[in-house]
Amino acid sequence: MDFNHSPASQAALARLKAFMTERVLPVESQLLDINRTLNAGGDWTRWSLIPEIEALKTEAREAGLWNLFLPDAELGQGLSCTDYAPLAEETGRVLFAPEIFNCNAPDTGNMEVLYHFGSEQQKEQWLKPLLNGDIRSVFCMTEPEVASSDATNMQATIKEDGESLVLNGRKWWSTGLGHPNAKVAIFMGLSNPEAPKHAQHAMVLVPLDATGVEIERMLTANGDYDAPYGHGEVSFNNVRVPRENLIWDLGKGFAIAQGRLGPGRIHHCMRAIGAAERALELAVQRGLSRVAFGKPLVKLGGNAERIADARMMIDQARLLTLNAAWKIDTVGVKNAMTEISAIKVVVPNMLQQVADMAIQMHGGAGVSHDTPLASFAAAARMLRLADGPDEVHRHMVARLEIAKHLPEGRA
Amino acid sequence: MDFNHSPASQAALARLKAFMTERVLPVESQLLDINRTLNAGGDWTRWSLIPEIEALKTEAREAGLWNLFLPDAELGQGLSCTDYAPLAEETGRVLFAPEIFNCNAPDTGNMEVLYHFGSEQQKEQWLKPLLNGDIRSVFCMTEPEVASSDATNMQATIKEDGESLVLNGRKWWSTGLGHPNAKVAIFMGLSNPEAPKHAQHAMVLVPLDATGVEIERMLTANGDYDAPYGHGEVSFNNVRVPRENLIWDLGKGFAIAQGRLGPGRIHHCMRAIGAAERALELAVQRGLSRVAFGKPLVKLGGNAERIADARMMIDQARLLTLNAAWKIDTVGVKNAMTEISAIKVVVPNMLQQVADMAIQMHGGAGVSHDTPLASFAAAARMLRLADGPDEVHRHMVARLEIAKHLPEGRA
Amino acid sequence: MDFNHSPASQAALARLKAFMTERVLPVESQLLDINRTLNAGGDWTRWSLIPEIEALKTEAREAGLWNLFLPDAELGQGLSCTDYAPLAEETGRVLFAPEIFNCNAPDTGNMEVLYHFGSEQQKEQWLKPLLNGDIRSVFCMTEPEVASSDATNMQATIKEDGESLVLNGRKWWSTGLGHPNAKVAIFMGLSNPEAPKHAQHAMVLVPLDATGVEIERMLTANGDYDAPYGHGEVSFNNVRVPRENLIWDLGKGFAIAQGRLGPGRIHHCMRAIGAAERALELAVQRGLSRVAFGKPLVKLGGNAERIADARMMIDQARLLTLNAAWKIDTVGVKNAMTEISAIKVVVPNMLQQVADMAIQMHGGAGVSHDTPLASFAAAARMLRLADGPDEVHRHMVARLEIAKHLPEGRA
Amino acid sequence: MDFNHSPASQAALARLKAFMTERVLPVESQLLDINRTLNAGGDWTRWSLIPEIEALKTEAREAGLWNLFLPDAELGQGLSCTDYAPLAEETGRVLFAPEIFNCNAPDTGNMEVLYHFGSEQQKEQWLKPLLNGDIRSVFCMTEPEVASSDATNMQATIKEDGESLVLNGRKWWSTGLGHPNAKVAIFMGLSNPEAPKHAQHAMVLVPLDATGVEIERMLTANGDYDAPYGHGEVSFNNVRVPRENLIWDLGKGFAIAQGRLGPGRIHHCMRAIGAAERALELAVQRGLSRVAFGKPLVKLGGNAERIADARMMIDQARLLTLNAAWKIDTVGVKNAMTEISAIKVVVPNMLQQVADMAIQMHGGAGVSHDTPLASFAAAARMLRLADGPDEVHRHMVARLEIAKHLPEGRA
Repeated sequence: MDFNHSPASQAALARLKAFMTERVLPVESQLLDINRTLNAGGDWTRWSLIPEIEALKTEAREAGLWNLFLPDAELGQGLSCTDYAPLAEETGRVLFAPEIFNCNAPDTGNMEVLYHFGSEQQKEQWLKPLLNGDIRSVFCMTEPEVASSDATNMQATIKEDGESLVLNGRKWWSTGLGHPNAKVAIFMGLSNPEAPKHAQHAMVLVPLDATGVEIERMLTANGDYDAPYGHGEVSFNNVRVPRENLIWDLGKGFAIAQGRLGPGRIHHCMRAIGAAERALELAVQRGLSRVAFGKPLVKLGGNAERIADARMMIDQARLLTLNAAWKIDTVGVKNAMTEISAIKVVVPNMLQQVADMAIQMHGGAGVSHDTPLASFAAAARMLRLADGPDEVHRHMVARLEIAKHLPEGRA
Repeated sequence: MDFNHSPASQAALARLKAFMTERVLPVESQLLDINRTLNAGGDWTRWSLIPEIEALKTEAREAGLWNLFLPDAELGQGLSCTDYAPLAEETGRVLFAPEIFNCNAPDTGNMEVLYHFGSEQQKEQWLKPLLNGDIRSVFCMTEPEVASSDATNMQATIKEDGESLVLNGRKWWSTGLGHPNAKVAIFMGLSNPEAPKHAQHAMVLVPLDATGVEIERMLTANGDYDAPYGHGEVSFNNVRVPRENLIWDLGKGFAIAQGRLGPGRIHHCMRAIGAAERALELAVQRGLSRVAFGKPLVKLGGNAERIADARMMIDQARLLTLNAAWKIDTVGVKNAMTEISAIKVVVPNMLQQVADMAIQMHGGAGVSHDTPLASFAAAARMLRLADGPDEVHRHMVARLEIAKHLPEGRA
Repeated sequence: MDFNHSPASQAALARLKAFMTERVLPVESQLLDINRTLNAGGDWTRWSLIPEIEALKTEAREAGLWNLFLPDAELGQGLSCTDYAPLAEETGRVLFAPEIFNCNAPDTGNMEVLYHFGSEQQKEQWLKPLLNGDIRSVFCMTEPEVASSDATNMQATIKEDGESLVLNGRKWWSTGLGHPNAKVAIFMGLSNPEAPKHAQHAMVLVPLDATGVEIERMLTANGDYDAPYGHGEVSFNNVRVPRENLIWDLGKGFAIAQGRLGPGRIHHCMRAIGAAERALELAVQRGLSRVAFGKPLVKLGGNAERIADARMMIDQARLLTLNAAWKIDTVGVKNAMTEISAIKVVVPNMLQQVADMAIQMHGGAGVSHDTPLASFAAAARMLRLADGPDEVHRHMVARLEIAKHLPEGRA
Repeated sequence: MDFNHSPASQAALARLKAFMTERVLPVESQLLDINRTLNAGGDWTRWSLIPEIEALKTEAREAGLWNLFLPDAELGQGLSCTDYAPLAEETGRVLFAPEIFNCNAPDTGNMEVLYHFGSEQQKEQWLKPLLNGDIRSVFCMTEPEVASSDATNMQATIKEDGESLVLNGRKWWSTGLGHPNAKVAIFMGLSNPEAPKHAQHAMVLVPLDATGVEIERMLTANGDYDAPYGHGEVSFNNVRVPRENLIWDLGKGFAIAQGRLGPGRIHHCMRAIGAAERALELAVQRGLSRVAFGKPLVKLGGNAERIADARMMIDQARLLTLNAAWKIDTVGVKNAMTEISAIKVVVPNMLQQVADMAIQMHGGAGVSHDTPLASFAAAARMLRLADGPDEVHRHMVARLEIAKHLPEGRA
């Protein structure tokens, strides 16, 4: 039993921390202000890039802090899921940091899909510019008309028509759809409705300028459009793409999704842990510097206990996530289903509580844009729904727990 | 012991419910959409009125549903705090409804201050247009530089200079400051710094166009500017107002505040209870209409238990608030301190939980602007800080509880 | 709306409080010590009465503090459910107090059954000595072999055989079965298995010395036999009783149970609220008198907040229970199902939390028999299972909430 | 990063699990019944050994499953704190199992004290028979008259008088004091009241038959005397022991205590985790075998979610504890203060919740002695107070967290 990270992980983390401290944190507040002015309101057609972010991307790439998430030693940095975990945590401290290192969702997941399941042509056309950070991508899975917590509810369709595939359906919560550089979507739909339940779907690459792709609107998430990424609602009306845009094969949608989601949840969770650490730091600093009733806030009432609770929740959540990452690396996603579902429940709920505590310690400043706390709380709230709500993951953990007590095969 | 509302209260409630059902709820979504487009972003100088809201105000006034909060039979509707409580609950169901009935904070509190403590001239100049709904007002108490949970931290000053008062200081979270009709502020500051702790402050009326009043910016609250009301940060630099703008007297700031806050907390809490009832209704309706894994959501996992928990929390919170209102009416604010502080803690926390549950039942729709749920959650979060954070009110309840066991006078 | 208790209730409460203060509380600790020595261990055949308790019963009866629970003006004190509620609360402050006033479960519920549904002969034979406090009774419903949360699981049988009824089955958690004065049981079993689900059962009076009644053992409840009452497991093997022992009629078991449970839950809950008030008082007193790190415990960390939380939980639970009592009195049990189930969930959970907090404030003394706190916590734990577990009552509340949104009749 | 246990640990665990499965679990219920009859009531002078336990001790010793807790390769099994952790977990599944392997508190802690700080003579006289399991020992620290959460409140005294030490004071919660084999106490008291705060105390070995040692009574813990161990209250009246009974030196009491407590908390916590795993297993098994409303309980309402929550809480608590053990092994107790205090808060609270859930799933059986669940819940409740209450440990975690943000040395 050894809780130390590998030397490669530690070395990369040291460099990443230095970059965050020297280049990102000092401009955090300024860049958020610029964005708030530049990209106000829900009219995504007017959203624009933040030049300062683009410059930081170039710097990060030059510093070798690029595509850290990808285990491939050539295309990424050769870091395992466990190795990358503390780096993802570090990037989670600042809302816009992951993009600077080309490590932001949903692009990371989409790149993983292409890396593992894409054809050579698909890699050349889409993976390459994504790895370069030249374009952005979206993932079109959730639908407004059905409870998407049950993925088999999906209504969108993919039909073969000669050498083409014809897509129809309506999707929402396609994060990143409003980004000026968003160029391609991975679209999931019913391709083989007669097949067994988990072999009915396919994933197809769709250029966002294809005929029949209609961006309907951007959705606010807890009151914020999250520009210039955005959460889009988009309809696909007889969208025709060549068959080579199909990823892997018809009926493979769920198989691809499963491979995509394991590491992705580690990334999400570790970033959330980084946000929670940041929130706790801010809470302690505010609690030390503000005085009420003659004492710094940390000395008043239950404030110190709440700080302790935050520390204990964060440390538990981190260990749970690292253990899940280690299981993915050592025994594979399929043998780590309890662990992966468990962190999906535990970590966002933890962040929601820690951010809420930190907000309370800040008073009005906590809910304002003067701190990242309200954004952290909003992100936590979203994460409790994204990639399956708490309830679905609790159910998975329960099912596997109960199965231990059933005769083989009755799970 | 009788849990029935008075006939006057029941009659007014019936009319109010009819108005809400027929005139407000059908246009809720449309008006919110209009507002989102019309008043996007934080540049308050471009915010504008929603004509449809103005029209509804006229209708409500004609229907006798106007100034319901004011116990005065002539200026208001002669309803006691207890009588008004269920009406406040009803208006809490729709975010913008209170203004339609001229019952929105902070105007209600400001009107109460003028009604109880204002001079005839002040009533004529400010109370009258406020009661008419022609202007809006703000309350300038909280300051950015100090922990305002301890009101004695206040740094703003009010100095006598001949027949003038000279005001200096910086305030924030002045809700309504961005509203096109906002014309006057009640400014609280140190007037008698040498006096005993609760006799050091005064409240002064300040026209918002007075020289030296500088609106610095609007703050987001949980990501939203809450336009066209807004939460403003405003500086007062040697603002000079005539002495007749002083409310009551120098040193009376805390005495006024105490009188203002009792009924105000009932109003806030009852509105929050209305929001919680609405959230619960939406949760049940969504839970019945959406199907996952072959069943409506209300039949899945712990969803029904969460609905039950919401019902039990809401009913307890309502009874606690009604009891507090009844104590204000029968024994006065000073003898209802435990009750008033208790609801200030219990109700916003309850709403935060119920809204969170309802969001979760809705999936992505819950955090979007397609439902009022994210706004309810954000409002609950704000209420846990506004008018004293949870911690201050818990401390008050504890202090009074402990005092029961101390020799007289050692509380 | 009026939160004052009726004059009759207030007068009785004043006398009861005086009796508790002067006669019961001063000997509480001594009587518990006597009982612990006299009635140690699980051999119920050696359990004996506490003479001091018997003497207090006589005193209470002479003081007119007897059968307070019974609304009948002649047999009881003519107090409504709402009137009796604060009296039940008062008796809940001391574990053995309810028996002193002949107001202890399950005798109160059994007396109510006989009062409402018993024949004249049954009243003469059993209700009279119960009202006199000369005998004790038990209620045999729960069974060890099935999940009794679903009452339709019941396996015990009642068969007609000429002028006799023949009973078979095994029951447990028959509280009071070990008491030296326990003379009669109300036995519930399947009498009409072919009838509709809620018309299959009957209730029958069984003298405990009838042939075939076998007391198998006493069960510990959270480590305690609760002597000299006890929680018994008892088998009925071809127990033959005359048909006149049948209460009301065959198939009426559920109808009787429903009538029995409404007021009974008010009683249980109000006693639990009394226990919670006592626990809070003890917590504050301990917190004021013990010093650590230079301060009384109430000034340390979150202790004051926890005291406030207890006050707020208790007050909410009491209002919810009083409202339920008022609904029983004004619209009847059948129209107060949400309220009755809600208090059954809320109040025991509240007591469990408040007692836990008070234990923590006491340190080791809190879990010891030097305070009633561990007993309160154990009682709360039992109450979360007795008369239907939390889950069943949450389900009832949810079902009725959801039904509001269903077309008539689909609940 | 490697979450696998060492080969030595895994091998020992496999043998221990086999012993538990084959020799302990099959007789668990029978031995608890024997004990309940044999050792009923609080008269400790009549408590006696359970011969079956003594026989199992012999077997365990012969199987090499003896003194597993002691890192010494000769006297124990050479297992590090981390290595021993999963073994402690396994023994925690059955209440009386730790003693079978000579791994029960407080003997383990006392043996560690003698092992690290005892003189050769002390080791010969007391450590040897303790390691043989021939005698039992107690630890006398907590006092009834003061808040022992603040150890500096201690009032007991140790005075030098020639070659003797004279002890005075009253202690309680001396666990094991009622055991027939209890022969010696480690007594902690003020020896150097003028010294700095953490150098004022000493620890002294006191034979329980020394003149002036008076066992006053056994205390119930949550209603149970925990015979034949017991929790004793004991007075020391001018108890005179030779100076060679002093452990280490005068003024070293706190230094010894600190060394004693680190591994001890790992042991306590891992046993609690074992109890929680057992409780969860029982809950699932009950939930699968009992049927209500036509379904097994695990399919009803929120039961499956609660099972999932238990799994997630247990896994997090275990990882936190293993990490703390690893830090003790790698960087020492002094550098693992956050971790050691964190598990002391997290784990007992987790067990309390999991046991409570499992009780609820069992209905009445859950609170009875038919399952170990009520005992687990009671043990968890005790653990939240023993060795420092939650509040003290939360305070420690908070203090160290806050110190990270203070200038060096201001912690």
